[in-house]
Amino acid sequence: MNLENNLLMIPGPVPVAPRILRSMSRPIIGHRGKEFGDMYSECQTTLKELFGTKNDVYIITGSGSCAMETAVSNVIGEKDTLITIENGKFGERFREIGERYGQVKAVKFDWSKGESIELERVESALAEGAKAITLVHNDTSVGIKNPAKEIGDLAKKYGAIFIMDGVTTIGGDEVLIDKWGVDIAVVGSQKCIGAPPGLSAISVSKKTWESIVDKPPYYMDLKAYKKSANKDTAQTPYTPAVSLFFAFQEALRIVKEEGLEARIKRHAKFAEALRAAACAMNIELFPQLNKYSKYSNTVTAMKIPTGIDDKKLRNGIKEIGIQVSGGQGTLEGKIFRIGSMGNISKLDILSTIQAVEIVLHRNDVVKKMGPGVEAASNILK
Amino acid sequence: MNLENNLLMIPGPVPVAPRILRSMSRPIIGHRGKEFGDMYSECQTTLKELFGTKNDVYIITGSGSCAMETAVSNVIGEKDTLITIENGKFGERFREIGERYGQVKAVKFDWSKGESIELERVESALAEGAKAITLVHNDTSVGIKNPAKEIGDLAKKYGAIFIMDGVTTIGGDEVLIDKWGVDIAVVGSQKCIGAPPGLSAISVSKKTWESIVDKPPYYMDLKAYKKSANKDTAQTPYTPAVSLFFAFQEALRIVKEEGLEARIKRHAKFAEALRAAACAMNIELFPQLNKYSKYSNTVTAMKIPTGIDDKKLRNGIKEIGIQVSGGQGTLEGKIFRIGSMGNISKLDILSTIQAVEIVLHRNDVVKKMGPGVEAASNILK
Repeated sequence: MNLENNLLMIPGPVPVAPRILRSMSRPIIGHRGKEFGDMYSECQTTLKELFGTKNDVYIITGSGSCAMETAVSNVIGEKDTLITIENGKFGERFREIGERYGQVKAVKFDWSKGESIELERVESALAEGAKAITLVHNDTSVGIKNPAKEIGDLAKKYGAIFIMDGVTTIGGDEVLIDKWGVDIAVVGSQKCIGAPPGLSAISVSKKTWESIVDKPPYYMDLKAYKKSANKDTAQTPYTPAVSLFFAFQEALRIVKEEGLEARIKRHAKFAEALRAAACAMNIELFPQLNKYSKYSNTVTAMKIPTGIDDKKLRNGIKEIGIQVSGGQGTLEGKIFRIGSMGNISKLDILSTIQAVEIVLHRNDVVKKMGPGVEAASNILK
Repeated sequence: MNLENNLLMIPGPVPVAPRILRSMSRPIIGHRGKEFGDMYSECQTTLKELFGTKNDVYIITGSGSCAMETAVSNVIGEKDTLITIENGKFGERFREIGERYGQVKAVKFDWSKGESIELERVESALAEGAKAITLVHNDTSVGIKNPAKEIGDLAKKYGAIFIMDGVTTIGGDEVLIDKWGVDIAVVGSQKCIGAPPGLSAISVSKKTWESIVDKPPYYMDLKAYKKSANKDTAQTPYTPAVSLFFAFQEALRIVKEEGLEARIKRHAKFAEALRAAACAMNIELFPQLNKYSKYSNTVTAMKIPTGIDDKKLRNGIKEIGIQVSGGQGTLEGKIFRIGSMGNISKLDILSTIQAVEIVLHRNDVVKKMGPGVEAASNILK
């Protein structure tokens, strides 16, 4: 029996609030008219607050990966060097994208061990010269929040364009694009903002405009996005996913109703509750933090405890009605991850912990029920 | 008072049936699971019927332009020649895209005059050698249906990969990809298929796979689409717009319920009714047909009659509650266009003609009311 009520606690897409789902039932409107333009402008204004920027912000019909590629392809030409900082799957993705456009110098940290970024190695790479540098602010594959401000300082010191993937922080964690000196930042609709997947947004600094490449992919050409957005009624250069804009607008209104500060605090609290519960259930957190890194406030990565395997654990949780994620790449079978982004509730967090605890208890991994939920409830009260 | 009931008679996006709109209210599901995979597979199967192909078909989160670029960028490398046949705005778009990837040789027909394609000029260009050739099957900017079969024959004769934009024909007009020898065909969700905008689909022939380029844009890499689609549960390489897939699935089910043949006949009838009405109101059709071209079955382009201007005409129609399109580029102010794609009804066609007739009558362009609607109703009865 499919009641369409499976609770999605993965690192995106996230559960979408009924208000937002309903907004997509609106009849389609023309995408070149004032009604669409007003909606686009409203979304841009709110996004600027979430990004912490006065830079231009555009909305792309395409996933976060499309926005990541838009960032790289507008900055890196054949002879340009891009430094990619990699301590997770999405850090690697920037390299894979960069290799299609120019010269890539990868600064790698072993993400199969959950390693954190060391600024010294990043600085050494920058000192050799590069046009741009990429950072994934929060890499969901490992559950680490990376040091954005510090990388921003280094990028500025060496004159590199700073490209930041804020896909799983913007709208749910503190992001200060202008203060940190981020030249291009991207976000996806289906993460902390709580809308359905399919849209992404990108901010572009003055410095970026000054050294933008001539011919990025046509669909990703930021100059075209700028030209269309600056028309009397704001437009997108190509037909946008109108229904997803309805949803995005509604999701951004919800963000404003909650208040960005309150939303960020809530996300931090939820992640803290998950970590406290893990600790109480003797589940080890995966990341190896250093003085610059932090546990993610939007996804919690944990080692699969001794006495149970990935399949048994996640299938058990799923059978109760909750979907959590496994590890990616070489981490498959070694870790599991719980997303806590967007418009989710205390109850969602508590239910998820309860489900984990039930499955561990059924499999004799923990002796008694209760400590996990208790630890979380202490944080959430 | 905005009742959200403006009738969209533009060449896409089209009005979306309530059934399809409602489908987007479904809660989001994980995009790596069986439920999504089954939905993707079902859509692929139906799309193959609409394309008339046994080739692989993939669904992209992105507009028709994204799919056009996916086609070109996977085939054309720096030294490859692409022939673009241009007799409208979208024909030109293929050139603009092609210029980002390789050498473009444009075969241009004056679309400001509504010129049709001459096969002789296309053949001359092909005889000089090219890796690929593009055709827009139905260019909505001019309301012409171009000779796809004939171009397919020429492409085969000269060994060129045939890329066809079927954005505004597939699902509403006869398209026979395999029979015509189309190597890559693309369609948008928001045209004849009647779904909301934001998705596109692309078919890829064996011949294309054999000479695919190594590094197209990351987001558009057909090899990645193939790899993901061929997993045990079909997936997309990057997070798809899940809600739009719900809508696309529902729209494709409606196509099957109507039956493709009946749907094609209906589209042809509606366009015929629009042309008959235009004739009865002394409105001149825009395209200059030759023996190879036909009037479009999905959009009707007409000259703005003497005695009224574009603004007065379209604003008058809009005031009655219907949105039609103006001309693009140099055709702005010279023509207007009525889309008749997707899940629209006889009543929508008759209402539109009635509105045109009212506005012309109010402005003394036609002496009496009635002939336009009468001519259309004779076709539609």
